[in-house]
Amino acid sequence: MNSLTEKILAGDKRAIGRAISAVEDSRPEAVDLLKELFPHTGKALVIGITGAPGAGKSTLVDRLAAYHRAAGQRVGIVAIDPSSPFTGGALLGDRIRMQTMATDPGIFIRSMASRGHLGGVARATVDAVAILDAAGYNEVIVETVGVGQDEIDIVKTADVTVVVLVPGMGDGVQAMKAGIMEIGDVFVINKADRDGVLRTQRELELLLSISERPDGWKARIVKTVATDNSGTDTLAAAITDYEAFLRSHREQSISRRARVAEHRIIELLRNRLLETAVTRGLSEGELREFATDVAERRRDPYTVVDEIMARLGI
Amino acid sequence: MNSLTEKILAGDKRAIGRAISAVEDSRPEAVDLLKELFPHTGKALVIGITGAPGAGKSTLVDRLAAYHRAAGQRVGIVAIDPSSPFTGGALLGDRIRMQTMATDPGIFIRSMASRGHLGGVARATVDAVAILDAAGYNEVIVETVGVGQDEIDIVKTADVTVVVLVPGMGDGVQAMKAGIMEIGDVFVINKADRDGVLRTQRELELLLSISERPDGWKARIVKTVATDNSGTDTLAAAITDYEAFLRSHREQSISRRARVAEHRIIELLRNRLLETAVTRGLSEGELREFATDVAERRRDPYTVVDEIMARLGI
Repeated sequence: MNSLTEKILAGDKRAIGRAISAVEDSRPEAVDLLKELFPHTGKALVIGITGAPGAGKSTLVDRLAAYHRAAGQRVGIVAIDPSSPFTGGALLGDRIRMQTMATDPGIFIRSMASRGHLGGVARATVDAVAILDAAGYNEVIVETVGVGQDEIDIVKTADVTVVVLVPGMGDGVQAMKAGIMEIGDVFVINKADRDGVLRTQRELELLLSISERPDGWKARIVKTVATDNSGTDTLAAAITDYEAFLRSHREQSISRRARVAEHRIIELLRNRLLETAVTRGLSEGELREFATDVAERRRDPYTVVDEIMARLGI
Repeated sequence: MNSLTEKILAGDKRAIGRAISAVEDSRPEAVDLLKELFPHTGKALVIGITGAPGAGKSTLVDRLAAYHRAAGQRVGIVAIDPSSPFTGGALLGDRIRMQTMATDPGIFIRSMASRGHLGGVARATVDAVAILDAAGYNEVIVETVGVGQDEIDIVKTADVTVVVLVPGMGDGVQAMKAGIMEIGDVFVINKADRDGVLRTQRELELLLSISERPDGWKARIVKTVATDNSGTDTLAAAITDYEAFLRSHREQSISRRARVAEHRIIELLRNRLLETAVTRGLSEGELREFATDVAERRRDPYTVVDEIMARLGI
């Protein structure tokens, strides 16, 4: 076992930070590290929190973390920020939070940018969660902005998924229906001191009533005002209820985890195959040349891919 | 050249339908067909239309198609329906439209379900568009529900991207901002006879004013009431304006097409590599076994993927 692994298992924050950077950059040593850490994972409760931008997710996550801290738990937070082409990730969010939380030794908080094609933020996030899990954090909260398939894939890998809404979204609830509604175990109506909270609640109840879950769980609806720290305890209780449900329904729990694992293996394999292809047979310059050929219709993309596959000897 | 190719180039609707089924099912003969058709593509104007469910996209697409038909154009429509686990795709939408349009020989309409992991709806859609393009349709309209990354990827491959909103979305516009706002060349506020149209327009203008496009195009905002066929001509004119812009800015146009082509090559390669892996080294039963091992923490996913890669001899 290498010394970074030992330090992580001992909960050393600097080591954890370095390990997460390694998975984020897809550095080769990260894989060995993750293999060593894997047997020490599976203890943390992974909570995925998603919702529209401006729904108050960050504040809610901070409140939830503080709640568990007060109960003596150690809490890890991984926040996925929509990529910015300018900053390469929302450093701002990190800095604001740093002031209130980074001084607490029982909290680890990290922002990850949702950029990049080849690595995949979904893969990096799952790995970061595994690192925090192995490091002994009791709860690991993953926070994403629920707009894309990537973000949905990320929260799907959590043990419990929390979807955050705000009153007055109206058609917004409709908009999210197809993608996000079906993955929520707990729904939060945040900013519940605003007008329209009842209407949003009724819409949500209607949506939930028409889509019964195959596992038999009835999704909870919780109202919060995160800025006032109101409703945090109710949210924590709803999450605990779902955790208890999973524990008492062992079959559902295993099939959920197996589904997540299958998806993960496919994704890892897909990335590894593409990485290998790019490393062995396809430089960036060549790729650009191929792309120009296709764009100007000198060659079709299928023949181009045939050629790349032939070069790889596959 | 095989006879299916000839029939497609001659515009035979049954042949076109069979070819689209072949790409949808990832049948091996589809690749040869697409290679033969490729030199005949690049003539159609591909219009991507996306927006939230309930925004009235289907009606709008039908109106736009009828508008171009009246001008003597042939129009192909590919509608991506959110997957339903029960029907395997929204057959309903097809059936309603069939009644009004399927009798017109100058219209080809096809629904595709956004299901499946291994094939990829983005790949199948681009292929279906290529078939319609080769078959001589002047406009090919691709209609998606803009909720996931897949759907965003699909409309990105169009020549012109139209984003459909409705009044009163409020926070909904915010919600879509991160993913969809930046890809629209033309924005439609449909159901413009409803309350709140001015507010939505102002929000939209504000959003567009703060995010300048690198290519210099100023996105258009068009108001329509698709059910009354009001504003269809203005929408068609806005699309034509963007087409003219692309033609007069050759460099932007080529770099857009090259970017799309690069993305397409990567996606094709990724799928082909995974298909090869699954065919050669990984049965469905084995995959499920591996997944259970990982879920129950008997083995880590990295070691599992190592084993699969080793089996493939890669």
